[in-house]
Amino acid sequence: MRVRLDVSYDGTEFSGWARQPQRRTVQDVLERALATVLRLPSVQLRVAGRTDAGVHATGQVAHCDLPSLPGGLERRLAGILPPDVRVQAVQAVPPAFDARFAALWRRYVYRVCDAPSGVAPLLRREVLAWPRALDVAAMRGACARLIGLHDFAAYCRHREGTSTIRTLQQLSLERHDAEIVITAVADAFCQSMVRSLVGALLAVGDGRRGADWPASLLGIDRRADDVVVAPPHGLTLVEVGYPPDDGLATRVEQARARRT
Amino acid sequence: MRVRLDVSYDGTEFSGWARQPQRRTVQDVLERALATVLRLPSVQLRVAGRTDAGVHATGQVAHCDLPSLPGGLERRLAGILPPDVRVQAVQAVPPAFDARFAALWRRYVYRVCDAPSGVAPLLRREVLAWPRALDVAAMRGACARLIGLHDFAAYCRHREGTSTIRTLQQLSLERHDAEIVITAVADAFCQSMVRSLVGALLAVGDGRRGADWPASLLGIDRRADDVVVAPPHGLTLVEVGYPPDDGLATRVEQARARRT
Repeated sequence: MRVRLDVSYDGTEFSGWARQPQRRTVQDVLERALATVLRLPSVQLRVAGRTDAGVHATGQVAHCDLPSLPGGLERRLAGILPPDVRVQAVQAVPPAFDARFAALWRRYVYRVCDAPSGVAPLLRREVLAWPRALDVAAMRGACARLIGLHDFAAYCRHREGTSTIRTLQQLSLERHDAEIVITAVADAFCQSMVRSLVGALLAVGDGRRGADWPASLLGIDRRADDVVVAPPHGLTLVEVGYPPDDGLATRVEQARARRT
Repeated sequence: MRVRLDVSYDGTEFSGWARQPQRRTVQDVLERALATVLRLPSVQLRVAGRTDAGVHATGQVAHCDLPSLPGGLERRLAGILPPDVRVQAVQAVPPAFDARFAALWRRYVYRVCDAPSGVAPLLRREVLAWPRALDVAAMRGACARLIGLHDFAAYCRHREGTSTIRTLQQLSLERHDAEIVITAVADAFCQSMVRSLVGALLAVGDGRRGADWPASLLGIDRRADDVVVAPPHGLTLVEVGYPPDDGLATRVEQARARRT
């Protein structure tokens, strides 16, 4: 039986999502908790967004295959998971559901605060403090030029055999007093892509680069050294979109073909 | 020159606002930072709400008297304060301003989450996890009966020479999905009063007590042993109200007379 899990975590104390030897990762903590609660030798999760160390999630999605789905699993998991990971919802899904390959889009937000007094204490683990006032109008101009289907190699940590061509569906900014919320939506993101885009936008907001500069890097076929990757703690994966059930199989086929 | 400071803090790592020997308190950290930045031997702050250990603030107000007020103080304080305290604003105020005695009201919020999956990881330091579904309608009924001018001795840690008669102007609940936000506004609160009221409301929400019970304790002349004080981390001081400048002196006189 295929099961979907909706997961949130505070990334501060995790070395990212993906299992790594000797490191505390969300995948490892969750897989162990599931195996314990379900009395299984092991559980394997596949995830929509393999977030980096320090990145948070409020709307991460994962799936696994289980022999059965007992009721009240959310509560039982809450009883043994550490407080920095929660499984908000567990549900049976069609066998064609795949948290990674069936996803139509991922939405991330990056939060920055440019108040002279710094970030509000209760938000300091999820909002980046910026020491100078940011020019949001200039940053918006840069965003507009980045949207669409492009080769984002300049913004990606390249991995052998994977494409860096992505469709950036949304890249927008909202200012709420001193807090600037950058929203990025794409079919998929390469590693460190959101944080690299944010790094380029911050250079524009600071006046160190013009609004044309971030888009001018889209022609380059490898990672641009002068793009600073913004710190991970400002970034949160907030939502993943999937097609209706009868569109799952087609989407998985498309995504698998394109991705590898 | 009298100066008003608007202050926020994450109370997790503080033994409350008020200075105590050998303890890390907000008052002590702030007074030292001010003295350092202003090169003064010492600075003494008076505050609107002497919050307990573990209680947060987003809208705390304090005042002090300084020989002068240099510009850019917020930024300079941000440079030396630890990240769990911020001074959002510093401004010169009339000499009659008194953060404590001129305050007309204090607004606190207490946040509880009754989702089976527990509290969202990024909110776990400021929201109490409640293991059972809370009956908000019953809690609202209890709130309505507590509002007004009463002797809140049953809900106060009594201190010699201080009154426990307070005007509770607002006590209300809002549910946003699994998060319940309890708002309490009063001219002033005695020590542990908000958390005691919340503790009584939680007993009602749980079905262990009727909606009449919290108000039935208002007749008692000393702390009620069967009221559980809710944990501090759910509580945040969010706003303090003051009269316009020409009403400050009268308000301070009233408050001093009544309070001691």
